[in-house]
Amino acid sequence: MATRFDSEVYARRLRRAADLTRDAGYDAIIVGTGPDFRYLTGSTAETFERLTALVIPASGQAWVVTARLELAALRESAIGELGLRIADWVDGDDPYALALDGLGESARLAVSDSLPALHLIPFARRTSVAPDLATPVLRELRMIKDDAELEALRRAGEAIDRVHARMAEFLKPGRTEAEVAADIDAAIRAEGHTHAEFIIVGSGPNGADPHHEHSDRVIAEDDVVVIDIGGPVEPGYNSDSTRTYCFGPPRADVAEAYAVLERAQAAAVAAVRPGVSAESVDAAARDILVDAGLGDRFIHRTGHGIGLSVHEEPYIVAGNADVLREGMAFSVEPGVYFDGDWGARIEDIVIVTADGCEPVNSRPHGLVVLPN
Amino acid sequence: MATRFDSEVYARRLRRAADLTRDAGYDAIIVGTGPDFRYLTGSTAETFERLTALVIPASGQAWVVTARLELAALRESAIGELGLRIADWVDGDDPYALALDGLGESARLAVSDSLPALHLIPFARRTSVAPDLATPVLRELRMIKDDAELEALRRAGEAIDRVHARMAEFLKPGRTEAEVAADIDAAIRAEGHTHAEFIIVGSGPNGADPHHEHSDRVIAEDDVVVIDIGGPVEPGYNSDSTRTYCFGPPRADVAEAYAVLERAQAAAVAAVRPGVSAESVDAAARDILVDAGLGDRFIHRTGHGIGLSVHEEPYIVAGNADVLREGMAFSVEPGVYFDGDWGARIEDIVIVTADGCEPVNSRPHGLVVLPN
Repeated sequence: MATRFDSEVYARRLRRAADLTRDAGYDAIIVGTGPDFRYLTGSTAETFERLTALVIPASGQAWVVTARLELAALRESAIGELGLRIADWVDGDDPYALALDGLGESARLAVSDSLPALHLIPFARRTSVAPDLATPVLRELRMIKDDAELEALRRAGEAIDRVHARMAEFLKPGRTEAEVAADIDAAIRAEGHTHAEFIIVGSGPNGADPHHEHSDRVIAEDDVVVIDIGGPVEPGYNSDSTRTYCFGPPRADVAEAYAVLERAQAAAVAAVRPGVSAESVDAAARDILVDAGLGDRFIHRTGHGIGLSVHEEPYIVAGNADVLREGMAFSVEPGVYFDGDWGARIEDIVIVTADGCEPVNSRPHGLVVLPN
Repeated sequence: MATRFDSEVYARRLRRAADLTRDAGYDAIIVGTGPDFRYLTGSTAETFERLTALVIPASGQAWVVTARLELAALRESAIGELGLRIADWVDGDDPYALALDGLGESARLAVSDSLPALHLIPFARRTSVAPDLATPVLRELRMIKDDAELEALRRAGEAIDRVHARMAEFLKPGRTEAEVAADIDAAIRAEGHTHAEFIIVGSGPNGADPHHEHSDRVIAEDDVVVIDIGGPVEPGYNSDSTRTYCFGPPRADVAEAYAVLERAQAAAVAAVRPGVSAESVDAAARDILVDAGLGDRFIHRTGHGIGLSVHEEPYIVAGNADVLREGMAFSVEPGVYFDGDWGARIEDIVIVTADGCEPVNSRPHGLVVLPN
């Protein structure tokens, strides 16, 4: 698979970004390297202290500013084929002045959310109006996936499902979480990802920490184990799926709480359709857990958008009244966490369709009992 | 090795950061996750859309703001032992208000350079004075390494030297750059790094791109190959060393240009001592290349500081009049690049001593001729 789509895809996205920039009343948006930059140019370049940025003016052609020694890194992108002007600089030049070329001191700027303070502050100093976040502009583009993006997300979902399907090969009592994670890492790549972006192997008490990664803890026969894994498939779209495992009949209290969690996850998936709010999907899962007395065990939001970033808009969280639209893709992943004892989480990525949603993951949702 | 130093190290750094904050006239500095955060707390936590930040006021105790589900990630840090107050928040809360607690609307803030726009702009909106970069404050701390940091940098240098010493095992004509890189990756870990941070295998024309990583290009017997590799050893300090290889007697023009490069690198190392400017070290290398008619082949700065970040202050670059001081550590890495043909670079990390410098790398600097 290529690392990017055809150039016409980026041409279309750049035109739409310029339209949205103008609609939002900005003179230009400035996009540093990272997922937004890749979305708009197909470039996987990553720079930190040396500014590389795409400048999209409200009218006219976009341009790219980059250090001369990063020019080769842009070669694989669509920037050349699209004929964008590249303003290159060498150490000692002022890249901010190059980026703001022709925009004037009173330009209204918006910047990509990952642009570091190191670069944002020099931009802010050169303009009289404080820059805004370009997120409202860029989210409009990135939140609604086109067919090629949805195809990539489905492919990512199938790839991570194949890894979960092989879990009995890796996850066994007596092994350390780190050993299991190393095998999962290899499987994630073998099943079609370019690399593993994250691997959570949360056994026993470690499963009660939603952001535990993995450790040298030896997995015990009576552990419940949370496996939350994912990574990108070309051209850069991520998988993310969680299943919870054990090695024999679970304790009665575990089985009982897990059954509630399974209902909560299914209810949230069932609540997804165009026109409802993001927070209503969170509430669909949360209400069931609260009703069962497990509300304080569900200590995070229900989900996050996914695409070129593992976490992006829309966030499925209380307080987010944003309305779901066809083509959005996000995780639905309620969990329950019992400090010092065990945890469980069930996570699928879903795509919003015309009248509901399509999960890209299809592994069974029950607590998976593996041989010990 | 532990992932951090003893808590007293961080207590001392925090006290010094508060002093420097006060001296610089700020009411507080705000440090997002990343190398500065690790430097000040020992925490390796990394968050993006959920704010985790250390707030160091000019007077009084520092505090930490974090999402509740990231609390466990801070457990390994010194934050608990130091008794810092932790203000935790859940999805839906306002973490910026928590961070600015008690500082007032006219607070003069400075932020860490990696804080993303996503978080900087909300801070800027809540205060009447535009935030500055905290770099001038934090660089004072991070640029001058203490004995424990220097010991870690020496250990990192020895570890990457052992990888270069084994290069004949990996680098052979007929293999792809990617195959060589995979073996180097394993060797970097085997020799004591926690992981490889970057691996450049630039063979033939790819060596002419200073930021080439590796590709499926098959290495040829008459290639010159640039190998630039490094990664962290615990507690997080990086190696970074480049040597250039070939598989038989080099072409006369290669040998001639390489000899100049070797003199340039040695001259720059010889120029390092307390009291001279960063740019004078760049000039020491550049002058020799310019005199030999190779000035336009040396298309990047001579070096960068190194520590918890691979690239940090001081930058050894034209225009940087900063004066070198004992305890600084940085790369000295001139290169020559012949587009479409070949490239070479020689890189050591050096530590500024009382009267000169101490390279942490000790592999020979000549073009390394491997068996083919």
